[in-house]
Amino acid sequence: MPTPSELRRDIVSGDWVVVATGRAKRPHDFVAEKKFIIKQHKKDCPFEFLPDNPILVYAKQSTDTENKKPSERNWWVEVIPNKFPAFSLPDQIGGEVKKNIFGIQKNGPYESLDGIGFHEVVVTADHNRWAAQMSVPEVELMLRAFQERYLEIKKNYWVKYISIFQNHGRNAGASIDHPHSQIIAIPVIPPDVGRSIKGSKDYFRDHKACVHCLILDYEIKEKIRIVYENDDFVIIAPFASKNAFESRIFPKKHGACFEEINGKTRLALADALKIILAKLSIGLKDPDYNFFIHTAPTGDYKEFDHYHWHLEIVPKTSVWAGFEIGTGIEISTIAPETAADFLKKIKI
Amino acid sequence: MPTPSELRRDIVSGDWVVVATGRAKRPHDFVAEKKFIIKQHKKDCPFEFLPDNPILVYAKQSTDTENKKPSERNWWVEVIPNKFPAFSLPDQIGGEVKKNIFGIQKNGPYESLDGIGFHEVVVTADHNRWAAQMSVPEVELMLRAFQERYLEIKKNYWVKYISIFQNHGRNAGASIDHPHSQIIAIPVIPPDVGRSIKGSKDYFRDHKACVHCLILDYEIKEKIRIVYENDDFVIIAPFASKNAFESRIFPKKHGACFEEINGKTRLALADALKIILAKLSIGLKDPDYNFFIHTAPTGDYKEFDHYHWHLEIVPKTSVWAGFEIGTGIEISTIAPETAADFLKKIKI
Repeated sequence: MPTPSELRRDIVSGDWVVVATGRAKRPHDFVAEKKFIIKQHKKDCPFEFLPDNPILVYAKQSTDTENKKPSERNWWVEVIPNKFPAFSLPDQIGGEVKKNIFGIQKNGPYESLDGIGFHEVVVTADHNRWAAQMSVPEVELMLRAFQERYLEIKKNYWVKYISIFQNHGRNAGASIDHPHSQIIAIPVIPPDVGRSIKGSKDYFRDHKACVHCLILDYEIKEKIRIVYENDDFVIIAPFASKNAFESRIFPKKHGACFEEINGKTRLALADALKIILAKLSIGLKDPDYNFFIHTAPTGDYKEFDHYHWHLEIVPKTSVWAGFEIGTGIEISTIAPETAADFLKKIKI
Repeated sequence: MPTPSELRRDIVSGDWVVVATGRAKRPHDFVAEKKFIIKQHKKDCPFEFLPDNPILVYAKQSTDTENKKPSERNWWVEVIPNKFPAFSLPDQIGGEVKKNIFGIQKNGPYESLDGIGFHEVVVTADHNRWAAQMSVPEVELMLRAFQERYLEIKKNYWVKYISIFQNHGRNAGASIDHPHSQIIAIPVIPPDVGRSIKGSKDYFRDHKACVHCLILDYEIKEKIRIVYENDDFVIIAPFASKNAFESRIFPKKHGACFEEINGKTRLALADALKIILAKLSIGLKDPDYNFFIHTAPTGDYKEFDHYHWHLEIVPKTSVWAGFEIGTGIEISTIAPETAADFLKKIKI
């Protein structure tokens, strides 16, 4: 008799996933194949030097007053425009002079919008150290850059959503080896985000409670899907994980907006992010991964009060095949409970 | 001034995609990197021999009466159970004796279902020829096997959706090199399919017309996104393509159900499928790809009359990165109009 697999429903989005442990693998089976990859050398790296006019730059943290001023010698985080942007600023493509730049254009039966937006790159100075190898204060500075840019970009009334994410490794879509993250701001609310917002809103309407707060309470009591906790954050392997070893960092205190965190909370988030990435790096031998922040759309705060922001980390342990692309149902071959237990035990 | 990118909305699902031609690539830039891959030799191939009790088997088409009976020597298509199924038949996991096997189970705040379903593999006999290299009658037999199994499987009242798909190449999720497709039948309607069904239903309610028929009429008139047509089918590069070189084969005549096609239509579908796969194989030098059929859920036909079944082909030309995973918005770096023009001109 085969081990039965299980269909699990994400109670926020309503999506189904399959946990197919009958195709059983042990955690170590998820260690990525080592592929022949041309590593970019430091001397050819476009992110090694501080450009003349970065959008933002922070110096390494230091008690030495002189060193607090960022320079070529001691910068730690810089934000620069993406050289090959997927979105352009309105004034780069004709500005508001161009009629209807922010409006939907009809094209036969179809609809389109100009691809206006921000597309920036957040670079940390060290060519070889990603967040898993950084100190917590170094990660905190990277998060502070995310937050500062978020607060600045959201001032543009036409920005509807700001996505902050990191791609590590070629299989996760990174084309440059030097550690970097990206910020993309767009004039629409993305469909996936819209569905989670709606799920959270419907739950709040029916139960007068946040669905994520409910999940966290249950998980903290249940313990089997908890990977790590500190004072302000808890890392869980979601019950309806879409990918093997997927992890989510949730603030324990309800809040819709990532950009509202304070210095203490930011440091606790840096601790949690560094810990989970280090655990993945040790446990799965430096897997390629993506992480991204899911936070409320910009705009009227009150409208999204029910939402609970979080950060998701998705290691690239498998590829989407025809079933996943054709149905949107992902098949995970390790149970999140097994993944959580494996990751929890890894010592940092 | 950078080339502006464009956000396009899929009028059926409501999803957005980005066509970012500012990161411009020419069609030839999408030729896959040749990677070091261990090819499975014929002698080690699990699909070389006809097993004792295949679920279904067809002989090669032949005018010779004796050869019409499938045997080890002249079989062309066989259907066998997947050895590592993601879903199991009810009686394999306890049967209907087990309480509530078809019902939703509560697990704290979560919901799950037993992973019941069919998971079968459709194999064509030749180790080295995929559909791009087959004759049209050979492809037609493969489609006939899809259809025969579909009709048989849908008799099970608990089956809600049947997904038929093919993965070609490791980057598209295939673990075996021998040409094969898969059939997975599940007890829920997949969320992505559900959203398309809803989009099609809402359009029908508001306009008393099929949204896909409208799209086809417009595209056939407009010509710029048409890759190929025969009497019964048209291949288009969708206006809101999620992936570079994505193609969809639509029946010209409205119909909700793939499984209702007749012999003549099946042959025309085989022609279209062979043509598009051959064009991709020549133009992009044998890219990895997935194809899958989107058809109405099983069950009450009348409920899904508004739907228009089709087959989607998605070459693996890029990886999903943090932005795509975090937002559900895909960035395509070639316009579907350019892809269609490129594919149209490739001679078979």
